[in-house]
Amino acid sequence: VRAGDHGTRQRSWYGWGWLEDAVGPVERDGLADLLAMRFGPTDTRTAPPEVSEIALRPARLARIPDSLAPIIQQTPVDRAGHTYGKAFRDVARAFARRWDHPPDAVAYAESEADVVAVLDWACDARYAVIPFGGGSSVVGGVEADLTGAALADRPVVSLDLTGLRGVLEVDAASACARIAGGTFGPDADAELRRHGLTMRHYPQSYEHSTVGGWVATRAGGHFATGPTHIDDSVLSTRCVTPQGISTSRLVPASGAGPSPDRLFIGSEGILGVISEVWLRVHPRPIHRASASVRFAQLQQGAGAVQQLAQSGLQPANCRLLDATEAQSAGVTDGSVVLLLGFESHDHPVDTALARATEIAADHGGSVRGGPSLGGAAGSDAAGWRAAFLRAPYLRDAMLSLGCIAETFETACTWREFPAFDAAVRDAVESALHSICGAGSVGMRFTHVYPSGPAPYYTVIAPGRPGDPMSLVAQWDEIKAAASEAIIGAGGTITHHHAVGRVHRPWYDRQRPAVFAAALRGAKQALDPTGSLNPGVLL
Amino acid sequence: VRAGDHGTRQRSWYGWGWLEDAVGPVERDGLADLLAMRFGPTDTRTAPPEVSEIALRPARLARIPDSLAPIIQQTPVDRAGHTYGKAFRDVARAFARRWDHPPDAVAYAESEADVVAVLDWACDARYAVIPFGGGSSVVGGVEADLTGAALADRPVVSLDLTGLRGVLEVDAASACARIAGGTFGPDADAELRRHGLTMRHYPQSYEHSTVGGWVATRAGGHFATGPTHIDDSVLSTRCVTPQGISTSRLVPASGAGPSPDRLFIGSEGILGVISEVWLRVHPRPIHRASASVRFAQLQQGAGAVQQLAQSGLQPANCRLLDATEAQSAGVTDGSVVLLLGFESHDHPVDTALARATEIAADHGGSVRGGPSLGGAAGSDAAGWRAAFLRAPYLRDAMLSLGCIAETFETACTWREFPAFDAAVRDAVESALHSICGAGSVGMRFTHVYPSGPAPYYTVIAPGRPGDPMSLVAQWDEIKAAASEAIIGAGGTITHHHAVGRVHRPWYDRQRPAVFAAALRGAKQALDPTGSLNPGVLL
Repeated sequence: VRAGDHGTRQRSWYGWGWLEDAVGPVERDGLADLLAMRFGPTDTRTAPPEVSEIALRPARLARIPDSLAPIIQQTPVDRAGHTYGKAFRDVARAFARRWDHPPDAVAYAESEADVVAVLDWACDARYAVIPFGGGSSVVGGVEADLTGAALADRPVVSLDLTGLRGVLEVDAASACARIAGGTFGPDADAELRRHGLTMRHYPQSYEHSTVGGWVATRAGGHFATGPTHIDDSVLSTRCVTPQGISTSRLVPASGAGPSPDRLFIGSEGILGVISEVWLRVHPRPIHRASASVRFAQLQQGAGAVQQLAQSGLQPANCRLLDATEAQSAGVTDGSVVLLLGFESHDHPVDTALARATEIAADHGGSVRGGPSLGGAAGSDAAGWRAAFLRAPYLRDAMLSLGCIAETFETACTWREFPAFDAAVRDAVESALHSICGAGSVGMRFTHVYPSGPAPYYTVIAPGRPGDPMSLVAQWDEIKAAASEAIIGAGGTITHHHAVGRVHRPWYDRQRPAVFAAALRGAKQALDPTGSLNPGVLL
Repeated sequence: VRAGDHGTRQRSWYGWGWLEDAVGPVERDGLADLLAMRFGPTDTRTAPPEVSEIALRPARLARIPDSLAPIIQQTPVDRAGHTYGKAFRDVARAFARRWDHPPDAVAYAESEADVVAVLDWACDARYAVIPFGGGSSVVGGVEADLTGAALADRPVVSLDLTGLRGVLEVDAASACARIAGGTFGPDADAELRRHGLTMRHYPQSYEHSTVGGWVATRAGGHFATGPTHIDDSVLSTRCVTPQGISTSRLVPASGAGPSPDRLFIGSEGILGVISEVWLRVHPRPIHRASASVRFAQLQQGAGAVQQLAQSGLQPANCRLLDATEAQSAGVTDGSVVLLLGFESHDHPVDTALARATEIAADHGGSVRGGPSLGGAAGSDAAGWRAAFLRAPYLRDAMLSLGCIAETFETACTWREFPAFDAAVRDAVESALHSICGAGSVGMRFTHVYPSGPAPYYTVIAPGRPGDPMSLVAQWDEIKAAASEAIIGAGGTITHHHAVGRVHRPWYDRQRPAVFAAALRGAKQALDPTGSLNPGVLL
C-alpha cells in the first residue's frame, strides 16, 4: 500500500496510525487489567487481521485503459485498505474480517493529470469515484459502500491522492504557501520549517491526514480559539471536477459573490478533488505561557470559558475537561480542569495569561502553580496531550479486548449548553445502561467560540460478549441515541468535522432543505453522472 | 418614499444620505474655489433633480393582485428612487434627469410573509424582482436595468425590505442577536445598546444600509483587522427563495458540509431575500489606545502594516494613507500616515499599542505624540474620520460642479502589492490624463490581512465640459482602465464589497468558470424562473 509508506514506518491498513506504534501485548494486558477493574473481567482477545485473511468479492471493472494501468491496483490489501476510514466501527469491521463493500480498484494518482484522467475514465464508464486522502475519516466519508445512493451497484474506484504531495510554492511575504492536496501534515510542516514557517493546523489525525482532506472535511485544528478551522486558513483552492478545474484567485480576501472556496470547503468529495490549496502559514511561535485551573463544578469552568471566549484574548489552548476526562489525564481529585495556553511569534503573552487566569479565578477556579512563562505546558497539559495522541491506538486495543471506545462531537450556544449537555449525557448514559449494562461518558471542550463551545464526548463501555460486528451494532445504537439528542437539543452533527455517510439522517435534519436543493443543483452542474462520492451529503 | 422616513430626517431619493445633510450653497461655493485652485475654474452648476422633473416610461405591470395592492407603489418618486443605487454614476444620472430603466413598481414588504407573497406573484408572472435594502449599492446591484440579462424586457419589481426591521431576539450569553434583514445599522445598534451590546460593524454606508444588505453584499466594516467582514459575524441566515425559506441552524460553528450561510452571503439577491440574520454582537469597548505614525515613503508604511497584520496584535484601526489621502485629511507635509487604534471591552490595550508603534518605528515611522491612552483617537484619526463620513456628500457636490469624484477598491497579496499599486496608478493616471486632462489618485488601506492589504483608491478629476451623462461616460472609461489593471495584476474586483452589474466583465474573469457553473446550478434550483436580480453575478 503506497499510501502507507513513510520512510521506514508503515501506516496500518486496518487500524489507526503507524503499525509499529500499535499497542503491543504487554501494554494490552495492562489495559485489560484496568478495564477489568472498571467493568469486570473479560476474556475477549481478538487478534488484528492479517493480509492473508482478506477475502473480497471479485472486482467488477470491465476494463482498465492501458494509460491508467500503471497507477491502478486491485490487490486484496489495496482494496481492503481503502474500504473503510478509521472510526471505531471501521476498525471493528476489519477485526471481524469483514469487507463487504470493497472498492473494485484503487487508483494511486501521482499528479493532477492522473486525477483528471481517472475522473474522465470513471465518469465515462459510470463508475463511482471516492476521493481518498489519508483515509482517517471517522464518518464513513471514504467508505466504498454505495447502499442507499443512486446506482448502488456501480463499480467503485477509490482515488488515492497521497501521491500529490509537497509544498509547491512559499510566499513568505504574504504568509501563505501552495500545498499539494495529498500532502500529510508533518510532511508539509517539515518543508515549511525551512522557511521558519508552520501551518499551525493540528487535527488529532495530523500525522495521518492530508491537506486536501482537511479542506474537503472542514477540519478543525487543536487550537481552541482564533483561526483554528481550516476554513479560515484557505486562501485559494484548486479543485478538479468532471467539468474542469476550478482555480480561485489568490487574494487575501474578497467580497466578490459567494466564495468559491467556501463551496468546496466541506464538500467531502462530492463536487471535485482538491488538488492544491493556498494556505495561510505562520512564523513559528517563540513566546509561550500556560497554566491549568481547577474547578469544583463543570458549570463554573464553563462560565469561565464563556467569558474567556468573548474576551478577545484568543488563547491558543482553552480546553475544559470534565472530571471524567480529567481523571483519564491523571487528575484524580474529581476536579474539572481548564488548560490554558497562549503563544505568539511576535510578543510576550504573559499579560494575556494573567488576565485569563484572573477571569478563571473570578469563576471560582484555582490556578495551579501560576503561569509558567516561556516554557513547556504545565504538567496537566503535558499529561493530557500525551493521552490525546495515544488515544486512537488505545481505542483499537480496547476494541480487541471487546470494549467500545469512541467519541462524538458537536457545538451549541452558551445559552443552550447546560441543558444541552444534560440531555446528551442522559441519552448516552441511558443507552449505555440498556445496551452494555455499564460505561462512562466524559466531555471536554475542543474549541470555544464567542457564541458557544464545541463539546466533545468520549464513551468507554464494556461490549456485550460477541464478535466485533456485535460491537459495531452496539456502538451504532449508542451513536444514534447521541445523534438524536444532539439534533433534538439544537447542536450540529459532525465528527472530525465531517458528515460522511454515518451522519446523513441527522445532517438531513440540520441542513435547510432549500440549501440541499441548491447543493444538488451545484452537484448536478459539476458532476452530471453523479460519480463523485455517491451517498455523501446528498 | 417610506424607505426614506426616519424620525424627522428624510433620506435623499436621488443622492447620498440625509437630504438635510446635503452640501448647501455656501459650502459648495467654498468647494468650487478649492477645485478651481486645483484644476482651474469651471462654471458648471447642475442643480439637484426635483420630484416634479421625474419623467418615466409607463409602468408595464399587467395586474396587481388585490392582496398586494396596499404595499405596492407606482408613483414617479418611488420608482425613480429605486432605479439606482448611490454610486457616482447613479447620482450623476439622477442629476441628468435620466431614469431610462425604472422599476415598474416598488413593493414595500412589511413582513416576511409579504416577501413570500411578492416572490410568488412575481415569479408566477415572470417579472423580475430586485431586492432593495438601503439602496446604497455602488455597483449597480439594485439597478433596474436588465440589459444583457435573459428576458431583458420583463417588468421589474423593486422589493423594498426596509419594513422588515428590528432586533428580534438577543442572546447575550451567546453574544448574538437575531435581526430583521431590513434594519438600518444605527437602528439595530440603538436597540442593542440597551443590552450593552453593539454589532461593531461600521461600513461607510452604516447609516444608510441594512443588515440584510450587508450579508447579501459581503460588506466590510471599517475595522482594519480581526472580524471586520460581515462573513465572520453571521451565525445563521434566514433566506426567502422562490422554492421556500432556508433557515440555517444557530450554532457557534459547524463543519457539516459546505456552509449554507456562505452560499447566501454575497449572493447579491440572485438566490433569495435575506429576511433575518443571527449576528455576533459584542460588549461595548471601554479600553482604547491610539496613535498616528508618519512615514517618508509609502513602502515603509506598507512594510510596517504587513508586519502588523501578521503580528497577531489585531489592531481595530490600522489605516495607511498615502500622501495624497493624508493631505485630504489635513496632513500637509507630504507624509504617509498610519492611523493605529486598539480597543477592548475586557482588558487594557496599551501594551498592544506600544508593540505596534515599536514595529512602526522599526520601519522608519515617526510616532506622533505617543500613544494616547483611554481617550479618543488622535487628531489625525479624528480628522480622517470626519472626512470619511462627509466624503459621499462632497462627492455629490463635486458632481454638481462638473467634477468626477469616485473611489474603487481591491485586495492583493503583500508580495504583489508594490508592482500592483504602481500598475493601477499608472493605468488610472494615464486614463485621467487622456480623458480629463488632469486629476489625482489617492490610496489608503481600508483593511489589512496577514496575506495582503485592501488598497482603496480615490479619484478626483475635472470633468470635460458637458452634462452629467458625459461625466458618467468619462468615469466609466476611467473605471474600466482601473478594473483592467486590477484584474491584470492579480487583484479582486468589487466595490463596497459587491460585484453588482458594473463589475461583471471583470468578475467573470476573476471567478473560476467551474464555480460559475455550480452557482448557475444552485440558482436554477432555487429560482427556476430566473426572477431574482437578473444580470447580477450570472
